[in-house]
Amino acid sequence: MEFSPLLEKMIESLRCLPGVGRKSAQRAAFHLLERDRRGAEDLAKALIAAIEHVGHCQHCRNYTEQDLCSICAHPKRSQSKLMCIVESPADLLALEQSGQFKGRYFVLFGHLSPLDGIGPEQLGLSVLEQQFQNSVVDEVVLATNPTVEGDATAHYIADLCKKYSINATRIAHGVPVGGELEYVDGTTLARSFAGRTQMP
Amino acid sequence: MEFSPLLEKMIESLRCLPGVGRKSAQRAAFHLLERDRRGAEDLAKALIAAIEHVGHCQHCRNYTEQDLCSICAHPKRSQSKLMCIVESPADLLALEQSGQFKGRYFVLFGHLSPLDGIGPEQLGLSVLEQQFQNSVVDEVVLATNPTVEGDATAHYIADLCKKYSINATRIAHGVPVGGELEYVDGTTLARSFAGRTQMP
Ligand SMILES: [Zn+2]
Ligand SMILES: [Zn+2]
Repeated sequence: MEFSPLLEKMIESLRCLPGVGRKSAQRAAFHLLERDRRGAEDLAKALIAAIEHVGHCQHCRNYTEQDLCSICAHPKRSQSKLMCIVESPADLLALEQSGQFKGRYFVLFGHLSPLDGIGPEQLGLSVLEQQFQNSVVDEVVLATNPTVEGDATAHYIADLCKKYSINATRIAHGVPVGGELEYVDGTTLARSFAGRTQMP
Repeated sequence: MEFSPLLEKMIESLRCLPGVGRKSAQRAAFHLLERDRRGAEDLAKALIAAIEHVGHCQHCRNYTEQDLCSICAHPKRSQSKLMCIVESPADLLALEQSGQFKGRYFVLFGHLSPLDGIGPEQLGLSVLEQQFQNSVVDEVVLATNPTVEGDATAHYIADLCKKYSINATRIAHGVPVGGELEYVDGTTLARSFAGRTQMP
């Protein structure tokens, strides 16, 4: 036995969301039908609008429904000689919310992962290299994740930078501010030691 | 800083789903945009179709896009004198999948909860009483959950049954089949004792 065809279709369709199995899809469907039909309608419209119009910024690859994202279209930031490279739009958002960085970005949408078929081309590195050729930047801050793949990707791009005499830097990794040393994992502690700086 | 308007709208709209906060909505949006635009489109269409057409069965209140659900429209089951009352369509599905029950259902969509303003009317008990008046059933199996509210609701409906000389029974609660006694909670054990039956 199954539910009625339209309800079954709704439940199955909800499973396209990451981490949503049959049970939670069912729960979500009941919630929407019983308590939030308006929300379901809004969601449907928002999905259609987004998949039809949201593409990638021609400069930085971040999501946008324009040719250029708001940062690349920003009169001042688009002229910045400082470029920060991140793995995902979520990382970009986190950096923006810290409010420290005022340069431009480049979003890789992943990291090098040969086994998954993700090479330089998939990360848009040819687009990036073109920007290096046009010498739009003089420093690249590598803000990929402090993982094996993130580090490898950072090194790969740093090599690319050398070719164009662009200064490549890596964001610091270490003990989080406010974090207690005794609860920080060994790998982080090791990196925080290796990256120690002179006291002023 | 926020993402582009359409992406922000997509992320916010995904939060209508139960248990989905900002972070998981963001993750879901990225997943759909990067890897499953087709799934997002299907979901949008399924949502629209469901909220436009899925309503409640006129007899049992289960979800259906017809006047009657497939069980109430079933030539044999619709004539059954046995009615099982459950709190939710998910409970109905679970019972159907056990394959034991061949009668009809009535779905309460909740349980009595005066503090939340959920009384007999919200559970469709006037519709149910009308069916009792038309004497369509002679036994009602109360399969509400074994919780304080589920029990109270079962008792309320049992009283209603008395008025119409309908036999009201409650499903058995006790140690789950295959469950080990030592891991079963005390309340369940108490109910399993109280509900003990004669060995054949
Ligand atoms: Zn951009
Ligand atoms: Zn029905």
